[in-house]
Amino acid sequence: MSDKKTYDLAIIGGGPAGLTASIYASRYNVNNIVISEFMGGLMSEATEIGNFPSYPKISGQELSQKMQDHAFKSLDGISKFGRVNNINKEKENFKLMLDNDEEILAKAIIITTGTKHNKLNIKGEKEFAGKGVSYCATCDAFFYKDKTAAVVGGGNAALTSALHLAKVAKKVYIIHRRDKFRGEKYWLNKAQNTDNIEFILNSNVKEIAGDDKANKLILDPKKEIEIDGVFITIGTKPSLNFNSNFDLDLDKKGYIKVDAGMNTNIKGVFAAGDVSNGSNHFKQIVTSMAEGSIAANSAYEYIQQDKEDMDYQ
Amino acid sequence: MSDKKTYDLAIIGGGPAGLTASIYASRYNVNNIVISEFMGGLMSEATEIGNFPSYPKISGQELSQKMQDHAFKSLDGISKFGRVNNINKEKENFKLMLDNDEEILAKAIIITTGTKHNKLNIKGEKEFAGKGVSYCATCDAFFYKDKTAAVVGGGNAALTSALHLAKVAKKVYIIHRRDKFRGEKYWLNKAQNTDNIEFILNSNVKEIAGDDKANKLILDPKKEIEIDGVFITIGTKPSLNFNSNFDLDLDKKGYIKVDAGMNTNIKGVFAAGDVSNGSNHFKQIVTSMAEGSIAANSAYEYIQQDKEDMDYQ
Repeated sequence: MSDKKTYDLAIIGGGPAGLTASIYASRYNVNNIVISEFMGGLMSEATEIGNFPSYPKISGQELSQKMQDHAFKSLDGISKFGRVNNINKEKENFKLMLDNDEEILAKAIIITTGTKHNKLNIKGEKEFAGKGVSYCATCDAFFYKDKTAAVVGGGNAALTSALHLAKVAKKVYIIHRRDKFRGEKYWLNKAQNTDNIEFILNSNVKEIAGDDKANKLILDPKKEIEIDGVFITIGTKPSLNFNSNFDLDLDKKGYIKVDAGMNTNIKGVFAAGDVSNGSNHFKQIVTSMAEGSIAANSAYEYIQQDKEDMDYQ
Repeated sequence: MSDKKTYDLAIIGGGPAGLTASIYASRYNVNNIVISEFMGGLMSEATEIGNFPSYPKISGQELSQKMQDHAFKSLDGISKFGRVNNINKEKENFKLMLDNDEEILAKAIIITTGTKHNKLNIKGEKEFAGKGVSYCATCDAFFYKDKTAAVVGGGNAALTSALHLAKVAKKVYIIHRRDKFRGEKYWLNKAQNTDNIEFILNSNVKEIAGDDKANKLILDPKKEIEIDGVFITIGTKPSLNFNSNFDLDLDKKGYIKVDAGMNTNIKGVFAAGDVSNGSNHFKQIVTSMAEGSIAANSAYEYIQQDKEDMDYQ
């Protein structure tokens, strides 16, 4: 064993699904580790969350911190900063290799690696990344005090990003390729009633131009707008960046296929949260938490098969 | 129309599924009413909740109040105390008839009526109900200060009820028909380490005896124990107590069958929470909330089919 550490359960990913799985596992006395490069996941980026029952209004940062405290301070989950590069199924355990070459062994694993931001894949996007091109208004709005920013997209993330930016920026454009919005009407109304937000609809961004920094968007139909920065909020895709000696079944869009118990096609491997194809593809904090709880319960039952320590002694 | 009220969405039941559905619906600008005899549902009865992410420890009462405030004060959900006796599908609407003869019309309905307590169906249970026989420790523990109480069951509800009672009572028995517990190990450990809790395992309660009040339990294998009260916490069953002019598909145990979108077999009728067969039958506050959010989203899409007010104007 030497420097390898063995756990009953390794949870890969620290968003609401992973943290909830840890909370449930700890309460089952299943020793568990949560490995994540970014505890809280995309939840942490949310400027304001209004649909998490019991908190009429809370920031993603704060909710994320509360869940981490719950999992790692009030309960016995182990928090581990790191990236899992490799997962191999061995005889009795899964062997996880981290980017710092550390190895972790676990009887069962839950994959809750979530999603990552979609890119526009247009000219200038890569070139100006971090120089006027951002994917997270919560992270970067601060830099746009009294400046002009554009938000690209039509979902909740676009609307809330624009509202957040509008508080500090002089002017905010919402550029959307359609004239209908997928986001909640609550946010749409709010954006429509915000003086320094201007909607540019039925338009695509073709190019991000600039010199040292991005300073112009070229749209189709043909139009150019001056900006100090652009926030690209056009959805997400599953984040699965590890190698393994087994093949997980994915759906057409690349999400991990799960059954009602959050079982994948590989015994001992469970998935939960945005990376799974569960919850009717309705990707919310509450659905991630539910999937995390179900996955933990299934993992617990899987681990118990070899143990009888639930017996009354 | 006269005194009939029409809503986009009527939610029948006010537990975590119903309240979350209302929160989501309100944020979609779907006008909605939540009709319940008991806002908060069985969640309200929980003495202590430890697995609701972000609150390491909260009472069911408090969590329930926070969710109600969120749904009905911070947002525009309408809270209605009452019991739905009848649901009829009419041409364009569902017509709900309440026990006070009030009528409510709605374009879509979500059924979140939850579950009700199972009964032992033994001699004395009915006779002494409210006279030493209870189904809710949170509600009635107060009456057992320095007295002796028994809890019947082997799940989380039994263990947490016993722990709650042990704080006020002189002595608490946990009577369980098996020697293994379905409840979380966290609660089991805690009960095992509580001095005034005594376990009686592999035993069934055959009769509750007494005179004015219950004072004795007769067990099988043959044993009699003196008690001042008994708490029966042996699970729940779906609560569906209305008549309707349509037939909902139920599973073998009587839970409403739902698909991934929380659609029932009847168009415009959705179900969520403990009353549904969703979430792998893992009946938790987090899974109820997730189902409530999904049902609200599906109901919203269903209602939208006739409307285009999500368009940008």
